[in-house]
Amino acid sequence: MSTKAAVPFSREALEQVLKRRFFFAPAFEIYGGVSGLYDYGPPGCAFQANIVDTWRKHFILEEDMLEVDCTMLTPYEVLKTSGHVDKFSDWMCRDLKTGEIFRADHLVEEVLEARLKGDKAARGEKVADEDDDDKKKRKKKVKEIKNVKLDDEVVAEYQSVLNQIDGYSGEQLGELIKKYNITNPSTGGALEPPVEFNLMFETAIGPSGQLKGYLRPETAQGQFLNFAKLLEFNNEKMPFASASIGKSFRNEISPRAGLLRVREFLMAEIEHFVDPEDKSHPRFAEVKDLKLKFLPKGVQESGSNELVEKTIGEAVASKMVDNETLGYFMARIYQFLVKIGVDPSRCRFRQHLSNEMAHYASDCWDAELETSYGWIECVGCADRSAYDLSVHAARTNEKLVVRKALAEPRKVNNFEVDIDKKKFGPKFRKDAGAVTKFLTDRTQCELEDLAKELADNGKIVAKVPGVEGEVEIPAELVKIERVERVEHVREFTPNVIEPSFGLGRIIYSIFEHTFWARPEDKDRSVLSLPALVAPTKVLVVPLSSHSDLSPLVSKITSALRRAQVPFKVDDSSASIGKRYARNDELGTPFGITIDFDTVKDGSVTLRERDSTKQVRGALDDIVKAVKAITYDGVSWSEGTAHLTPFETVTEEK
Amino acid sequence: MSTKAAVPFSREALEQVLKRRFFFAPAFEIYGGVSGLYDYGPPGCAFQANIVDTWRKHFILEEDMLEVDCTMLTPYEVLKTSGHVDKFSDWMCRDLKTGEIFRADHLVEEVLEARLKGDKAARGEKVADEDDDDKKKRKKKVKEIKNVKLDDEVVAEYQSVLNQIDGYSGEQLGELIKKYNITNPSTGGALEPPVEFNLMFETAIGPSGQLKGYLRPETAQGQFLNFAKLLEFNNEKMPFASASIGKSFRNEISPRAGLLRVREFLMAEIEHFVDPEDKSHPRFAEVKDLKLKFLPKGVQESGSNELVEKTIGEAVASKMVDNETLGYFMARIYQFLVKIGVDPSRCRFRQHLSNEMAHYASDCWDAELETSYGWIECVGCADRSAYDLSVHAARTNEKLVVRKALAEPRKVNNFEVDIDKKKFGPKFRKDAGAVTKFLTDRTQCELEDLAKELADNGKIVAKVPGVEGEVEIPAELVKIERVERVEHVREFTPNVIEPSFGLGRIIYSIFEHTFWARPEDKDRSVLSLPALVAPTKVLVVPLSSHSDLSPLVSKITSALRRAQVPFKVDDSSASIGKRYARNDELGTPFGITIDFDTVKDGSVTLRERDSTKQVRGALDDIVKAVKAITYDGVSWSEGTAHLTPFETVTEEK
Repeated sequence: MSTKAAVPFSREALEQVLKRRFFFAPAFEIYGGVSGLYDYGPPGCAFQANIVDTWRKHFILEEDMLEVDCTMLTPYEVLKTSGHVDKFSDWMCRDLKTGEIFRADHLVEEVLEARLKGDKAARGEKVADEDDDDKKKRKKKVKEIKNVKLDDEVVAEYQSVLNQIDGYSGEQLGELIKKYNITNPSTGGALEPPVEFNLMFETAIGPSGQLKGYLRPETAQGQFLNFAKLLEFNNEKMPFASASIGKSFRNEISPRAGLLRVREFLMAEIEHFVDPEDKSHPRFAEVKDLKLKFLPKGVQESGSNELVEKTIGEAVASKMVDNETLGYFMARIYQFLVKIGVDPSRCRFRQHLSNEMAHYASDCWDAELETSYGWIECVGCADRSAYDLSVHAARTNEKLVVRKALAEPRKVNNFEVDIDKKKFGPKFRKDAGAVTKFLTDRTQCELEDLAKELADNGKIVAKVPGVEGEVEIPAELVKIERVERVEHVREFTPNVIEPSFGLGRIIYSIFEHTFWARPEDKDRSVLSLPALVAPTKVLVVPLSSHSDLSPLVSKITSALRRAQVPFKVDDSSASIGKRYARNDELGTPFGITIDFDTVKDGSVTLRERDSTKQVRGALDDIVKAVKAITYDGVSWSEGTAHLTPFETVTEEK
Repeated sequence: MSTKAAVPFSREALEQVLKRRFFFAPAFEIYGGVSGLYDYGPPGCAFQANIVDTWRKHFILEEDMLEVDCTMLTPYEVLKTSGHVDKFSDWMCRDLKTGEIFRADHLVEEVLEARLKGDKAARGEKVADEDDDDKKKRKKKVKEIKNVKLDDEVVAEYQSVLNQIDGYSGEQLGELIKKYNITNPSTGGALEPPVEFNLMFETAIGPSGQLKGYLRPETAQGQFLNFAKLLEFNNEKMPFASASIGKSFRNEISPRAGLLRVREFLMAEIEHFVDPEDKSHPRFAEVKDLKLKFLPKGVQESGSNELVEKTIGEAVASKMVDNETLGYFMARIYQFLVKIGVDPSRCRFRQHLSNEMAHYASDCWDAELETSYGWIECVGCADRSAYDLSVHAARTNEKLVVRKALAEPRKVNNFEVDIDKKKFGPKFRKDAGAVTKFLTDRTQCELEDLAKELADNGKIVAKVPGVEGEVEIPAELVKIERVERVEHVREFTPNVIEPSFGLGRIIYSIFEHTFWARPEDKDRSVLSLPALVAPTKVLVVPLSSHSDLSPLVSKITSALRRAQVPFKVDDSSASIGKRYARNDELGTPFGITIDFDTVKDGSVTLRERDSTKQVRGALDDIVKAVKAITYDGVSWSEGTAHLTPFETVTEEK
């Protein structure tokens, strides 16, 4: 593996390979493209399908989750209730002169980063991680930047702002723009103060045009709305999890950075429903010794980004991570990411800042992966408390609760409202419903006050929603008293722990983490995708187009098909070395070469992509080795121990 | 299988089972639902995933197709070019008084069918396929219908209209509505003439709101737009196919009939690109003897729907089916449908009527499945000619062609235009481009005429698009002559054969085709889903909750997990019979029972869902049998031949 670092990473080289091998491409490219929309070509599509398959096995099958497939079209009411209509937005600034639109936080980030780089350059320091191409782009995008040296305290201030960039409100962003004199980077023109832009795509459902809908911004809501059915399907057993894999949509203000910020993306989300009084996890012991890298909110708020490394067991014990179930999923997320090709040293868990987290969430950690674009949020893992189920239940009057038999019956001593319905109707007429609702909706604390008012004044005088003026409720119409009851069942709204995966971002990060060039020739690049998720597992290459070899090709391909190992044949006239080089770029982990010895004794050569090592053996043994290494986690040296090492001087030409 | 027909099919009973077992449910049900939108619960989702997996293996892997995953969001320009903006619409009629909106063809169909049923009832004949519930619904929906006897010729006319209902234009539907005096069925109110309603969901892409987009109505366009990249990925080899699996959208006017007509649905589409001069298929011989049921257009146009049964080889030889490649895919579609549970006797291929088919298509056949709603179009199989690639190429000026070396160079003798560009500019100024385009766009036939005009008159006088008045082109500015050239390469736009699957419709049809009730108890219903695609393969049931049995449960489940056989455990306190009955409704093909003999000798019982037959053997042998029957197409009797038949009187209690 050490050779992989010998040639410095070049994003440009990676992008060329991904394009040349059609992993993905801008959608509608022949029409000029639409920013933020990408199509996956055959290798990208297969890689994605293998990751989805691994996700299903790692999470859904392993934990017996209930998978559902819900619609993307979502009516207004649902997303109004969930809070997305009001809050799912970014801040945008418009340059009134040119009509250009900027996403406010990205603009601040871009300009401050550019100024910091200009400062470094002015100080004569090397600007890290920036190649010539990047520099040109930076200069082009942010014209105002000359290499100006900044005061040390300004540098510190900028850095602190950048460390907290995800946490600012629109107003705060507006202040930063003013304070740091940030303008349209390409013209220097003034910008309007930030305004909110809702990120959901809107549409009309049905021919009348009257039912407003959106494309879902996440798969979660569909799972919440089906909660009661899922609980019943699970024979009322708790805790349990549902899961969903599907596309979601976000009308980004100014998409950039390729697959990292797109308008349509594949998500995989889990909603784990748990008793709020018991967030322990039965399998936590299995993962507790796993070491992770954390960036807790305290560290961020102090303006630093130094990582804390400890086991997830310690993190939960110290309450840095709120509870066992949250910690369990963080560990499982990490295991999944590493399994599909993420470099463990470039994976951290960043805790949300208090002002960045939804008000209802009790804790939230993002799995972030390091790329040439910085640390990228790829998986969110949040404890959303009972928020979602509660708001939908309140809006629809459906019970979204769990009933659990108490181990021992318990006494409760609560204020209860007893309404004399016969008298209520004649007295309040059309307002009877509103007054009843007012009384039954009161909290225990409010009821205590009302009981006192009744006892003291013989009546309640109150403002009732939906009724004009004040309402007077005489004591003979209502009793409010403390009543003792014995409960055998506890009814509660479950809390939700939500691991939420953005698969496109993970896919791009893995490309960066596994891309390298052979030190002997920097134009020969390799994608070291793990065999488990590589688009194709085996390249079959006949040494020549000699007619003796072609029946062997079909013999080998039918053996691979029988073994259900995805393969491709390359019987083109290119040299063996060239054919392998092509497939190194496609991430194909194994090559099987057919030569004239194969005709004689049926033996074939197996080549490993990263080391270019080769072994030779009977076809059946080679196929068995490939299967074991690909699907059973066996290493190359274990899997090929019984095969004969094979060396050739002509191989990599 | 004969017992399955003993209890008549009841749609109501099926719907109850599908709902109770959460195969699917109306989306947003707790919000009152949105018509035409459904969510798949865990068994429906797993069934769908297994069908997708089978589809991938049957088509993509078997034929080495190139799978792509393209975006659903699609800009206006693309769908304008493809023709969807102008033509992807249905006809709707509005009742101005009530505001109700009807889909015109469905309305005509519904009313005429209701009248025919009323006629039958008036004649004292049994109204076929209508249970009491249906009758109530019919009466409720179509109030005007009393049981009125119709003239024989009216009956014949209605039937002929119904047989051709898919082929009418909006104007023709308007005439039918007038002629047959069709009104709002529930009020008798008059309806406006049909107007066009575009079925695409519209949205705006980006923050400016200026880029209009749609949700794709099919996955095909993304594949066409990537044609050049795919051809290159395939090393320029022809023919080849791309494929795509994903959601598409259709803003139906009035969705009805459950999963059969929905606004968001999963499609699987293949675009097979083929040389227009050679539509033979190398593997046609493998399928040529397969017998299919056809409903050719001639039969339909004669007002009949009698099926023609013959082999696909005969159908292609007689030119009833246009070409081998089209025929090959029809056969493969049939094999796929039968593999996943479609009843072969309820599958037909209906040819599109000439007026129903797009003008560019050279032939089109729908695989239709018979259900209680009638024959339902589930898979389209069309030869779309070069239409799609041609229109996108023309619009974008990108070359979407294949270059094929000619076996022998050939001479071509064509008229060519030779323009004197130096003089063209000064002479035509701003119109120079338009005049040039006019000349270069001419067909061979038109050029011949123009050459003659030049020779005769010394000039061309013509109307040029985009230029006012007539344009005069003198002979000294342009030469039009026949030139002989030798071509070594033929350049052509491939034709496209497109098999297009609506998976939701197929799924619902399979539910109907595999649903039956046990004759001894009509409340015990069974979904006889093929093991290959059943959501869960094995139910593991311990005979009791005795503590001796629980370690055996984990032993068995880990054996099944190792063998990658999806299973569920039911260790509830319900009787064995009840637990099996529950899983018969879920379509689970096998049950493994653990009893006290298992404790003694490790043997378990294997139960088959449809026959309720049981055999007994060692755990490993039972797992091996399950795998072979599920995945290798082995029959129950073969697969269990070496196991011991087992009988118990208590089984099905």
